[in-house]
Amino acid sequence: MKKDVKIGLIGYGTVGSGVYGLLKKNSEVIAARTGLNVSVKMICDLRADKIASEVTGTALTTNWKDIINDKEIDTVVELIGGVEPAKSMIIEALKAGKNVVTANKKLLAEAGSEIFSIVKNSKVKLGFEASVGGGIPCLDALKSGLVGNRINSVMGILNGTTNYILTRMEEGGLSFGDALKEAQREGFAEADPTFDIEGYDAGHKITLLGMLSFNKEIDYSAVSKEGITRISSIDMHFAREMGYVIKLLGIAKDVNGKIDVRVHPTMIRKNHQLASVRREFNAILFDADMTGNVVLFGKGAGSFPTASAVISDVVKISQNSMTEDSALHLDGKAELLPSGERCSRFYFRMRTEDSSGVLEKVAGVFAKNNISIASVVQKEKDSTDNTVPLIIMTHSASEASMKKSLELINGFDFIKEEVVVIRVED
Amino acid sequence: MKKDVKIGLIGYGTVGSGVYGLLKKNSEVIAARTGLNVSVKMICDLRADKIASEVTGTALTTNWKDIINDKEIDTVVELIGGVEPAKSMIIEALKAGKNVVTANKKLLAEAGSEIFSIVKNSKVKLGFEASVGGGIPCLDALKSGLVGNRINSVMGILNGTTNYILTRMEEGGLSFGDALKEAQREGFAEADPTFDIEGYDAGHKITLLGMLSFNKEIDYSAVSKEGITRISSIDMHFAREMGYVIKLLGIAKDVNGKIDVRVHPTMIRKNHQLASVRREFNAILFDADMTGNVVLFGKGAGSFPTASAVISDVVKISQNSMTEDSALHLDGKAELLPSGERCSRFYFRMRTEDSSGVLEKVAGVFAKNNISIASVVQKEKDSTDNTVPLIIMTHSASEASMKKSLELINGFDFIKEEVVVIRVED
Repeated sequence: MKKDVKIGLIGYGTVGSGVYGLLKKNSEVIAARTGLNVSVKMICDLRADKIASEVTGTALTTNWKDIINDKEIDTVVELIGGVEPAKSMIIEALKAGKNVVTANKKLLAEAGSEIFSIVKNSKVKLGFEASVGGGIPCLDALKSGLVGNRINSVMGILNGTTNYILTRMEEGGLSFGDALKEAQREGFAEADPTFDIEGYDAGHKITLLGMLSFNKEIDYSAVSKEGITRISSIDMHFAREMGYVIKLLGIAKDVNGKIDVRVHPTMIRKNHQLASVRREFNAILFDADMTGNVVLFGKGAGSFPTASAVISDVVKISQNSMTEDSALHLDGKAELLPSGERCSRFYFRMRTEDSSGVLEKVAGVFAKNNISIASVVQKEKDSTDNTVPLIIMTHSASEASMKKSLELINGFDFIKEEVVVIRVED
Repeated sequence: MKKDVKIGLIGYGTVGSGVYGLLKKNSEVIAARTGLNVSVKMICDLRADKIASEVTGTALTTNWKDIINDKEIDTVVELIGGVEPAKSMIIEALKAGKNVVTANKKLLAEAGSEIFSIVKNSKVKLGFEASVGGGIPCLDALKSGLVGNRINSVMGILNGTTNYILTRMEEGGLSFGDALKEAQREGFAEADPTFDIEGYDAGHKITLLGMLSFNKEIDYSAVSKEGITRISSIDMHFAREMGYVIKLLGIAKDVNGKIDVRVHPTMIRKNHQLASVRREFNAILFDADMTGNVVLFGKGAGSFPTASAVISDVVKISQNSMTEDSALHLDGKAELLPSGERCSRFYFRMRTEDSSGVLEKVAGVFAKNNISIASVVQKEKDSTDNTVPLIIMTHSASEASMKKSLELINGFDFIKEEVVVIRVED
């Protein structure tokens, strides 16, 4: 005896059309596995006219309230992204007693608490597997598979655009600008790439992963976010020489009860489990007390992979088997580790005048700030000007000491462009 | 309002003591996340006297029926392994209305159908996440995260013992025998390692993964299984020269509706996603139609990782949120691809007399069987005897052609030891 599940789809873009296409192709296999006949009953999209020829057997509307008001629709799938009007749609749907499935990491990371509290105090369910890691079932792994573990840390390559760019810079020797243009041509970067390359998207995702890992609310605006725009091929080169690769990582760690959460370009050793994740792929590494490291790898975006995550939530909700959502067991606000207290090794790349006394003065700044130098690389000067790259790798030091040193070094006359610092995760 | 969940543990060995220890350490965090107070109410172990000092607040018995008869126990965790008496225990527990969680891949792969049919016709639940991949939540990823996908193939490094041995042969240049001894010293191999090194354990796991991937019953006894005992350092060497590594893989593929399922040493390219899985770690690669490749990596065995999987099942069952088990939607018996029809490239390693005409005769065998040769490596002869290693890599050919060729080549007088064939997965 099959059970009918009728969903209402708000937004027929990349992911929305993927959900429709997935069900068209695979609804039989889903029914055989789960006993559920899942179908799209209504689609809301402002371009309803344009998509009419693409969809059959499905009502179309430009008014999302038609979906909320449809009594047969039990689950609303919100795929328009952004905070408003998505937030109002989701809240109205929940209040109307409908379950909601969304891929909207921005909304949940920036303004999720109101939504979570509505869900907590009702019988409806909220699924957001699709908001992190695309087709990789990473939230479910965390909430269900690792439920018996304390999470020490979670880190991941959470944004395909930046990983594509860094991979092409690393492997193809491209500049950041050329790699970005290639990513745009290949469909891996938006026309306006700010959101991805500045680390905001990865920031949303690590905020959600951090909340679920540590069962605390995390204030997205307090999460340190640094993008990849200042990374150059020369950094790729020196990283490789030292046995590292550079990846944009989202990191959330439990440091003696304080949560250290951030996004930044990171040097990781070339045999690190995230180092071999190439191009548009994503991967998430959980360090959990019982299992040790668990790594999940796959496509972090795209029409069908993200649709796969949406459908897994729809099925779980419809089977009444949604894992009791730990997002709804958030135990107050996380105490965040002040960024100055964070410790790591640092890579400094300076462009200096080729004159005597430079290294002495730079080394003096590090000494004064109690930063111990691990290695120094100074190359022959460029033929085009009178500058040389000077690379210093430090031993572990606090972020506060790094920032003080950075300010002082940037103040020297002989420093010819703003110093680049990359954090090292050993 | 917390709900009490009392489990009965049958078997207090490596995994059983891990479950007890995990709950001792993490039951509070589980309660905070899920609202469940999970505790071990009774342990059955034949060495009850010996373990009495290790466990507190928990009843001990040597008679497993005491657990079945305890009305307060709702979930029985079977961790003794093997077919009998585990099978009888599980069946009695299910019939007594108790849910069952087990790590027993041998039982489920070899004799699961009776158990599955009892579960199918009752309200009780069966969890067996711990039976494949230890702490890696791979069955849940397959059943729930990938529920909207058709699975094209699943392959994995499913046995830590053999992966440890192969890693040490590859990286340390050890012989098979020395690597096995080291694995035994380090606790990664049993005193009698047959079960692991002959591929039986990986066979059980790929049988279960195959059943869940393709929703068909798979007859374990019909699964081709070949272990790693004939792999030598010389194969590691030639594989590396050709850009490959050798891994023991469990593979299950859908080949036009027929299921191709097998375990054997496999040459995979060194940039393959499973190639970098070292030592005792496991990894599972799903090729799914919507998500593309999804890879899960972690510890495939051990006390706490496996306990983590057991507890995730206990929690799911207790939240009444166990994913509708696709093992219980098995749609008849799988039609298995006859092994002779399977196609791949093959690596042949021969030890031949160093005499003229050898290569011609070997090449003649391949030609007669329509196997096209991709590359040949023949090295200078050993100083110790009058033999040379002859390596031939073929283009794709059927297993039937390979077997015919193998028989003919083994029959030549100039072949000085049984030819080693390794399948290549490109």
